[in-house]
Amino acid sequence: MKLAPTQVLVLGFAAVILIGALLLTLPIATKSGESAGFLTALFTATSAVCVTGLVVVDTGTYWSTFGQVVIMLLIQIGGLGIMAMSTLFALILGRKITFKERLVMQEAFNVNSLEGIVKFAKYILIVTFLFESTGAVILSLRFLPQMGLKKAVYYGLFHSISAFNNAGFDLMGNFNSLTGYVSDWVVNLVIMGLIIFGGLGFYVLLDIYQQKHLHECTLHTRLVITITFFLIVVGALLIFLLEYNNPKTLKPLDFSTKILASLFQSVTPRTAGFNTLSLPDMTTASKFLTIILMFIGASPAGTGGGIKTTTFGVILFTVLSVIKGNDETVTFKRTIPRSIVYRSIAIAFISICIVLSVTMVLSVTEASNFLTELYEVTSAFGTVGLSLGLTPKLTVIGRIVIILTMYSGRVGPLTLAMALAQRQKKNKAIMKFADEKVMVG
Amino acid sequence: MKLAPTQVLVLGFAAVILIGALLLTLPIATKSGESAGFLTALFTATSAVCVTGLVVVDTGTYWSTFGQVVIMLLIQIGGLGIMAMSTLFALILGRKITFKERLVMQEAFNVNSLEGIVKFAKYILIVTFLFESTGAVILSLRFLPQMGLKKAVYYGLFHSISAFNNAGFDLMGNFNSLTGYVSDWVVNLVIMGLIIFGGLGFYVLLDIYQQKHLHECTLHTRLVITITFFLIVVGALLIFLLEYNNPKTLKPLDFSTKILASLFQSVTPRTAGFNTLSLPDMTTASKFLTIILMFIGASPAGTGGGIKTTTFGVILFTVLSVIKGNDETVTFKRTIPRSIVYRSIAIAFISICIVLSVTMVLSVTEASNFLTELYEVTSAFGTVGLSLGLTPKLTVIGRIVIILTMYSGRVGPLTLAMALAQRQKKNKAIMKFADEKVMVG
Ligand SMILES: [K+]
Ligand SMILES: [K+]
Repeated sequence: MKLAPTQVLVLGFAAVILIGALLLTLPIATKSGESAGFLTALFTATSAVCVTGLVVVDTGTYWSTFGQVVIMLLIQIGGLGIMAMSTLFALILGRKITFKERLVMQEAFNVNSLEGIVKFAKYILIVTFLFESTGAVILSLRFLPQMGLKKAVYYGLFHSISAFNNAGFDLMGNFNSLTGYVSDWVVNLVIMGLIIFGGLGFYVLLDIYQQKHLHECTLHTRLVITITFFLIVVGALLIFLLEYNNPKTLKPLDFSTKILASLFQSVTPRTAGFNTLSLPDMTTASKFLTIILMFIGASPAGTGGGIKTTTFGVILFTVLSVIKGNDETVTFKRTIPRSIVYRSIAIAFISICIVLSVTMVLSVTEASNFLTELYEVTSAFGTVGLSLGLTPKLTVIGRIVIILTMYSGRVGPLTLAMALAQRQKKNKAIMKFADEKVMVG
Repeated sequence: MKLAPTQVLVLGFAAVILIGALLLTLPIATKSGESAGFLTALFTATSAVCVTGLVVVDTGTYWSTFGQVVIMLLIQIGGLGIMAMSTLFALILGRKITFKERLVMQEAFNVNSLEGIVKFAKYILIVTFLFESTGAVILSLRFLPQMGLKKAVYYGLFHSISAFNNAGFDLMGNFNSLTGYVSDWVVNLVIMGLIIFGGLGFYVLLDIYQQKHLHECTLHTRLVITITFFLIVVGALLIFLLEYNNPKTLKPLDFSTKILASLFQSVTPRTAGFNTLSLPDMTTASKFLTIILMFIGASPAGTGGGIKTTTFGVILFTVLSVIKGNDETVTFKRTIPRSIVYRSIAIAFISICIVLSVTMVLSVTEASNFLTELYEVTSAFGTVGLSLGLTPKLTVIGRIVIILTMYSGRVGPLTLAMALAQRQKKNKAIMKFADEKVMVG
């Protein structure tokens, strides 16, 4: 039996989640020595493999070192898996879809040959290892005076892996995430760097590495960089303004720390899930801004989730082109084909439908408020992991719903994009109907 | 000086609003004999001319008969104005855009000739008069035993005009809207009928009248009918399920009244603004469903607001086409041109941005919760008028923001659609850039 790439993805993730859940159900996985129970273990394993980071129990205080190492491995497998699968998919599609006359990765990796696949796997492992080990060393050195050698190395490694894979799991205890490090420039910059590089995607990293200059890169890379930069800057600016006078978040901090914390809260929805400010204490406007940023998420072929920066970018540039009176989507002196625009609309529309439907379900099953439920669902679907505190209080139905949302948010958009792209190729000879216009707006 | 159609619309509405506000500032406009003050008068006049229906003071108890008649006239002018302007716009554009080989209205009205314009104006007035007088007679007869002749005729006329123009103003007192008539089949059916026919648009009414059979109608008409029917049925079904056990809404009602009330609450967001159930007592899920329905709104060239059923329909059928593997938007065996699809995306995207931005502003200025603010803003932007009770409590800044939102929600989408359509025609000779694809999703 030969499996399609989408089936490998869907079944592979499910298998790893199940194995992880079984390991986490073992009594030795918890500090107390009592089994966590299957639902809690399944929730945690799903969150780890999908690199989401939502947790029903605190990672640092609830799980034993064994449990934490299982979680760390699940994050690494999940992160590598999604990065490899989505990049491979781009390569496979890339044979038919020309990303540019000069095909960056098809030159490097011929995915039709065993040799090419091995080379590709080696590259992804090397890139991951380079980023994670660099992050781990710097974080360990920073934690050293505070924690001693053994704990510092362990914490450095865990948080570096968690950050590069955009997982957002932390060992700081009591659901605190990185709030204790709000003014720590080293920790903030390292974690932000890992989040951003992990979220840009393997394809973009390789393209930048090969081309040196941004204007020589593919449209894809330029779009990813532009939208990522735009979201970080606008997000940070708005959070800075909205939280400036909030006594529970930015107000007590000095000016430069205010800027650092705003920047961090703008980077983390893409889709890491760490936080240095108290999320429930943020203003309603900031919470909603975070929801929008989480929904957009990171870039394709990386470790992050969401509908992706490029999907948002394609829609944004379509709107800007229409406003300018152009009837095609033009960006960076390139035309984005209609099929890509339509596919972006489909991905955004279906994702909105899923998030809103699940939120409606939670509004029936949970005793919370709408914004909190929307926040948690978007966080689960976008594999972000930021939480206003609802997740640990979820009902059994709520937990199951969020487990399914995390899973579908992880494998869904990619398999959907794959399936849509493949269908469009097959149906070229479809019947052509006459044009007819309608009034809109 | 010759004004463009968009300028006529923008300035004409502003002028009527200002005159209305001045009249409502007069002491004789209120029951108490004291001036309402300019801000309250401006809010009410804007709400009436934009046929929104949001009110900061109760129409039935606060305003004198003089004030109420001013409001009724403002509604009539606003409703007729938007219907005439938007239909004229379709006619003007229609000369270049072929709605179908056989041009329904260009045959009937040649807008280049004075004769054609007069004939057109006569038709719109006749259609409006027929619907409103029929509604007024039936409602008056129904109100007669309860109110006596004079009041029954007045109430019949006021509510018929308010319903056909999708205004949602009522005289029942204490912000009660039609909650006292929740089980009254005559009132419900008449009001629903007026709302739906007013919301379908003049173009669709004329097309149906001329063609007799739906399958002979233009794609525009079939799309409007299909989406309107779909929204009413799905909306009613969901409200029925979500409110079935709610002791403050459907639970105390008998089965057939449950169905009637669900149907009414599903029709009124398109974009009338009457209600027969207590809106603040509805479930969170129903409130959010109402927000979505209000955002979509009614059909073009009618009295309703929102992004319009056709805009939603074009996006929906694009998504369905993509899922089916088609790279064009196909519906009813017709292809919708890319330019219309892109324009729909632009209208939906810009509208989402406006609603979310204004909601963020209110979340800073008002002491309420997110869902309530989003509800009120969507209601204002979509010219709906449904309220969870925030509007009468708005701060001064909040009132000004909602006034601007009502105005931009009324003239915005149409002028935007006009401007976009005209720009696209002008820029045909724009430079063509090479295609390049990007990964999405
Ligand atoms: K995450
Ligand atoms: K209305």
